[in-house]
Amino acid sequence: MSSTVISGIAALVTNEPSLGDASPLGLVRDAAVVLDGDRVAWVGAAGRAPAADDRVDAAGRAVIPGFVDSHSHLVFAGDRTEEFAARMSGRPYGAGGIRTTVAATRAAGDAALERTLARHLHEALRQGTTTMETKSGYGLTVEDEARALRIAARHTDETTFLGAHVVPPEHADDPAAYVSLVTGPMLDACAPYARWVDVFCEEGAFDGDQARAVLTAGRERGLTPRVHANQLSYGPGVQLAVELDAASADHCTHLTDADVDALAQGSTVATLLPGAEFSTRAAWPDARRLLDAGATVALSTDCNPGSSFTSSMPFCVALAVRDMGMTPDEALWSATAGGAAALRRDDVGRLVPGARADLVLLDAPSHVHLAYRPGVPLAAAVWHRGVRVV
Amino acid sequence: MSSTVISGIAALVTNEPSLGDASPLGLVRDAAVVLDGDRVAWVGAAGRAPAADDRVDAAGRAVIPGFVDSHSHLVFAGDRTEEFAARMSGRPYGAGGIRTTVAATRAAGDAALERTLARHLHEALRQGTTTMETKSGYGLTVEDEARALRIAARHTDETTFLGAHVVPPEHADDPAAYVSLVTGPMLDACAPYARWVDVFCEEGAFDGDQARAVLTAGRERGLTPRVHANQLSYGPGVQLAVELDAASADHCTHLTDADVDALAQGSTVATLLPGAEFSTRAAWPDARRLLDAGATVALSTDCNPGSSFTSSMPFCVALAVRDMGMTPDEALWSATAGGAAALRRDDVGRLVPGARADLVLLDAPSHVHLAYRPGVPLAAAVWHRGVRVV
Ligand SMILES: [Zn+2]
Ligand SMILES: [Zn+2]
Repeated sequence: MSSTVISGIAALVTNEPSLGDASPLGLVRDAAVVLDGDRVAWVGAAGRAPAADDRVDAAGRAVIPGFVDSHSHLVFAGDRTEEFAARMSGRPYGAGGIRTTVAATRAAGDAALERTLARHLHEALRQGTTTMETKSGYGLTVEDEARALRIAARHTDETTFLGAHVVPPEHADDPAAYVSLVTGPMLDACAPYARWVDVFCEEGAFDGDQARAVLTAGRERGLTPRVHANQLSYGPGVQLAVELDAASADHCTHLTDADVDALAQGSTVATLLPGAEFSTRAAWPDARRLLDAGATVALSTDCNPGSSFTSSMPFCVALAVRDMGMTPDEALWSATAGGAAALRRDDVGRLVPGARADLVLLDAPSHVHLAYRPGVPLAAAVWHRGVRVV
Repeated sequence: MSSTVISGIAALVTNEPSLGDASPLGLVRDAAVVLDGDRVAWVGAAGRAPAADDRVDAAGRAVIPGFVDSHSHLVFAGDRTEEFAARMSGRPYGAGGIRTTVAATRAAGDAALERTLARHLHEALRQGTTTMETKSGYGLTVEDEARALRIAARHTDETTFLGAHVVPPEHADDPAAYVSLVTGPMLDACAPYARWVDVFCEEGAFDGDQARAVLTAGRERGLTPRVHANQLSYGPGVQLAVELDAASADHCTHLTDADVDALAQGSTVATLLPGAEFSTRAAWPDARRLLDAGATVALSTDCNPGSSFTSSMPFCVALAVRDMGMTPDEALWSATAGGAAALRRDDVGRLVPGARADLVLLDAPSHVHLAYRPGVPLAAAVWHRGVRVV
């Protein structure tokens, strides 16, 4: 592969304070970046950029690291458009809910599932998302969960086993038996295709003891825990996540002071998913409270057909700034470096020599425009592993 | 020009009840549209479409009329990014405000102003906006207001004289003299390039008597009134708009029961601008109350660098559904046919034989996805005056 220098960058976000203005964003004004193969080779002041095979002129626009979306549910089938329309219109809607998606996903062929997954990953990529985690959780049988992860693993390294998404209808009478299935044969079948193990720890899904059983079983099989925690109500999810040193506690909408303290003390990232609150008209998570306490915060889309069908990280940034007390700088950090921290990655989410060449040229002079210009597609160009894909 | 048939449309929004399912959206399932030159020639069931020179396969996706954005302020110069970041971060910011934009706009050359305008119109077009009104109001001298409208008129038929945007600093001691300027020499210079006359009727801008003077003077010069009304507080703007049969009262955030009644009884459209409330963290206008009373509601971006720098009509649709009590159907109607009503146009905002061939192929099976998938760029193709531009 050849090398490329991108020059004329009005504002370059590196997320490496030592390379830039010493702020967490490590901002460099009048900057250049050199890509070599699939890696960043050099970043710095435009005037000192080394030569490269190709040259791109950013023409006074901003460059940021590709977004790292650490939470999505993209292996699914079925259409829940009518359910959404009914909910937002205050009309009753008989069927619906996650079980609709489970039934449709089980009934779908592999090719259809893969097409839908690939389409949404590409849609996210066009918006600047160059790393995207995705989960199983709409199969809920040994075969269907393993199939979901096998398909997902063809498209992303960040695959999460979420057999413990909800107790499926056929096990409604005996949730304990379902937990045994998840921690036994289902985990055996899924572990080869997954990096992470996740559980929806919530009233109506899995309680603290069940969640602990799932996460520890996953850990014994070499998967690292992450937790759907405290989305709909207060509960044990966040503290369990920190206790088990989970990479991330996701949602964090209802937090006690003890939950906030635990996140601030531990190494578990608090991943906030404002698309879910937007699409369900729920109260916003309080990012300010977490940041002020010293917790690490990530932003992610939670892209799924039920509660948050957005693939747009810029949209999440805009919501976080408007409604969750984040500054534009903090929100961008959380959508890039924060997401990387939630996936325990240091090769993405920042633009430093040796990092993966994942970056976005914005149609704007500053990254602040992601919040300042909500809804506007601002990804003018996207490089993924050094290849310009948009 | 040749003719084109777009077939394979899963759901076609015509906004003409008699052509479709009798709902206000006039929805046709399994539909086709034929474009001939710059006009719509035919719409109906796919199986009965007449032949055409070219064929486009919508492949099970939805088609809607192009968005009609009836309120924007795009003739401007200057950068207010830092002001936005400071406001959203709770940091003090000394300068800023509309006067910053006025100073920068006066100082800018014609070419720079036109470039910025054209760039934002094109950005909106890529998102599906095929009709866009825009205003003067950052010049506030005879020459600078006329220049703004002369430039705007090269790009859109929907130009609005907003000399009465704010009293400029040099007239701060004598607002009455500024109103005389606006209604006299400034109007004389601007009327040839404008279709509409507008006034910012608000405490701190222009009161009811001043607004009446501006609007009636404009009307005498052949311009039709529209009013910035009741955005920041209760006031006389809405009732004045209805009394003068203005095409639209814009913002309508603070309404008394009498204001709602007036809008319901009169022919003035209530144009709601949720981007402004989003970007200033203000309370939302209550679309449900207006619709239930029988008022006609339009949605628009208010695109401007100070209070609402979005050009995204889909974003406004999503906000209207989440936060303003509109159903997805109502919000789409208001962003298309509603905008057309606010501009007193019947050739845009609907897809009927004879209408302008302005339409958007969505990357979605239903128009509901505009609210269901917030922030996601869904315009897969855009036709403007019969020409495919995206
Ligand atoms: Zn989730
Ligand atoms: Zn305005």
